[in-house]
Amino acid sequence: MLAISKRGQAMPASPIRKLVPYAEAAKKRGTKVFHLNIGQPDIETPSMALDAVRHSDFKVLEYSHSAGNESYRKKLTQYYKKNGIEVSADQIIITTGGSEAILFGFMACLDPGDEVIIPEPFYANYNGFAVAAGVVVKPISSSIETGFALPPIEDFEKAITPKTKAIVVCNPNNPTGYLYSAEEMEILKQIIIKHQLFLFADEAYREFCYEGKHTSAMHLTGVEEHVVLMDTISKRYSACGARIGAFVTKNKTLLDAVMKFAQARLSPPSFAQILGEAAIDLPDNYFDTTKAEYKLRRDTIVKRLNNIPGVFCPNPGGAFYAMAQLPIDDADVFCQWLLEKFSWNNQTVMLAPATGFYSTPGLGKKEVRLAYVLNVASIHLAMDCLEKALEQYALEMK
Amino acid sequence: MLAISKRGQAMPASPIRKLVPYAEAAKKRGTKVFHLNIGQPDIETPSMALDAVRHSDFKVLEYSHSAGNESYRKKLTQYYKKNGIEVSADQIIITTGGSEAILFGFMACLDPGDEVIIPEPFYANYNGFAVAAGVVVKPISSSIETGFALPPIEDFEKAITPKTKAIVVCNPNNPTGYLYSAEEMEILKQIIIKHQLFLFADEAYREFCYEGKHTSAMHLTGVEEHVVLMDTISKRYSACGARIGAFVTKNKTLLDAVMKFAQARLSPPSFAQILGEAAIDLPDNYFDTTKAEYKLRRDTIVKRLNNIPGVFCPNPGGAFYAMAQLPIDDADVFCQWLLEKFSWNNQTVMLAPATGFYSTPGLGKKEVRLAYVLNVASIHLAMDCLEKALEQYALEMK
Repeated sequence: MLAISKRGQAMPASPIRKLVPYAEAAKKRGTKVFHLNIGQPDIETPSMALDAVRHSDFKVLEYSHSAGNESYRKKLTQYYKKNGIEVSADQIIITTGGSEAILFGFMACLDPGDEVIIPEPFYANYNGFAVAAGVVVKPISSSIETGFALPPIEDFEKAITPKTKAIVVCNPNNPTGYLYSAEEMEILKQIIIKHQLFLFADEAYREFCYEGKHTSAMHLTGVEEHVVLMDTISKRYSACGARIGAFVTKNKTLLDAVMKFAQARLSPPSFAQILGEAAIDLPDNYFDTTKAEYKLRRDTIVKRLNNIPGVFCPNPGGAFYAMAQLPIDDADVFCQWLLEKFSWNNQTVMLAPATGFYSTPGLGKKEVRLAYVLNVASIHLAMDCLEKALEQYALEMK
Repeated sequence: MLAISKRGQAMPASPIRKLVPYAEAAKKRGTKVFHLNIGQPDIETPSMALDAVRHSDFKVLEYSHSAGNESYRKKLTQYYKKNGIEVSADQIIITTGGSEAILFGFMACLDPGDEVIIPEPFYANYNGFAVAAGVVVKPISSSIETGFALPPIEDFEKAITPKTKAIVVCNPNNPTGYLYSAEEMEILKQIIIKHQLFLFADEAYREFCYEGKHTSAMHLTGVEEHVVLMDTISKRYSACGARIGAFVTKNKTLLDAVMKFAQARLSPPSFAQILGEAAIDLPDNYFDTTKAEYKLRRDTIVKRLNNIPGVFCPNPGGAFYAMAQLPIDDADVFCQWLLEKFSWNNQTVMLAPATGFYSTPGLGKKEVRLAYVLNVASIHLAMDCLEKALEQYALEMK
């Protein structure tokens, strides 16, 4: 019988995108939809970086080196150095988005059936890459009550089995916005030494820390062989469509293995490597403006959320996401209702139900993720919508 | 113990790229290297397509739809229609190069341990994607004596087991240049019906057929659910660095599954989708010039090769590769020797040893693949080098 694979059947739909058909239908009805569901910033991509592509003058759009252009990798070492990360160009493999760096890490460090521990809620697409690689995600739960702090060390130790090969830490965190402290990173270091694990660090939101300093996994000493940085330019330069990321490690054996995966797919996109390379020459204060803007948005959305009766939103220390608990029973149903049944002044809001970010069934049913990627005026309008919606929903559910 | 995965260890190095360090060393010594090892054409990318990117004026480089921009997919249906392929925009998922289309196909149609039949020699990176997906490649051998025609139907039937899920056909073929006839495609159709298999058709070189007409797997009738087209713009527009391809099928269940893999990695590169969309407006005679140029090169290289004593090169009907049998014992050793030990007028030639294109150990040891991606003058110089090299090598080996 002609049938797709079990793996294909097991692939999870994206919780960020699965409500898209309802949003499209709402728009067709003429309803304006505020997109707080997806981390697509409205901040402009730096024009000097876009211009580098627009002013390029090559005649043949060639394959690049499988590891990415050497000139770009060399330049990237300067960027990392400014962030206290000392790496050489040959410890960097340019990837097609952070996505590919994550997939390469799973593929090269874990075999089918091996386990990776990830504090939940977590970036939902880790699930997709785990299914693709045949890897088992073992979640350990962080909770909205503690603002999604790192779960206690005992929870990690309880979850570790002989099949455990790695821990993923996303810092600052997507979806929670939690910023891990230097102390928490030290705890992770002790665990990966004791149990001989890889530490996969997704630091896509490095630049956006509002409470304290960012501690990169690459800052940890004595665990150079264990640490893999899975990076991307998508968020820091508001260049999500570039599809340029990086797989960074000092582990030579691992680099050699990942290079073979990189060679199989030939090369990362050439145009966007030009953009990434140019962006490194942005002035040192470039991120100040962006960060100030995101901080203002965070302050706005968190305040508005906590002012709505029955809503609780811990203050996120970084990234551009907030998790909120709503006075509802089922966020999946509510988020779909927002798009299908609700509008206020011909407007509604699209949120990501949190269940898709939890691996443990039943968790996060009352929670949603909000990406504060719209300007403050739009955030206010979106929060007006949400406030009215919760009132109306409570009445309808009676 | 901290160790990379078995999968990471099992990943094959690219046979096209593994000699790169020797080529780099030769260049550092001041030797000019003619690159016939890799399908990186020297033909210019159409300037109107490059200009579409250079004249773009968006402010934010956003994620595209996970399936690729709708405008591009709609346009692409026109391109396919001109090639006798009737598909709708929602039967196309834009991928990051043909590479990703192949990986998606393996992932969504086969589970770990499942088998895919591929006539060998075959595009070496199929091996890499098979290892990544945990899929077992079952080669059936085609031979240089028959010009690499499709192996007899009995060979397929001998190779089919309950675990067989798909057949891959690359047409015109890389590395052999073989162009499958309509009759051979019909034979494949009978096999996939009888045994309920998927047919993965890699048609990257569709435009470059010098002997007769191209029969696409999408032309086959009554097997719409079975056929998957794995396409790319890399070769037809000389745009390898774009990393834009397409996964095309009429099988709705399969499309739905592949969309989940596509969503996990968010979107294909945005810049290059603009290029791909613009390229569809190239005049209908655009390919005539390119094809004529490749045909001239093919005629040149095949003639030169067959004029060298002891060399045999069947005339390839398509693509831009030729396979040649050389009067040597071990092409891997010889190709490395060409770069490490040989030069003539301070020049040498880089070839791809054919062993990497065969899955059966021991096959292809005397064969090399030559990509005729250089102009005729360079091909003559490269063939001068090869001729001299074989003379000198024979003397040294005595």
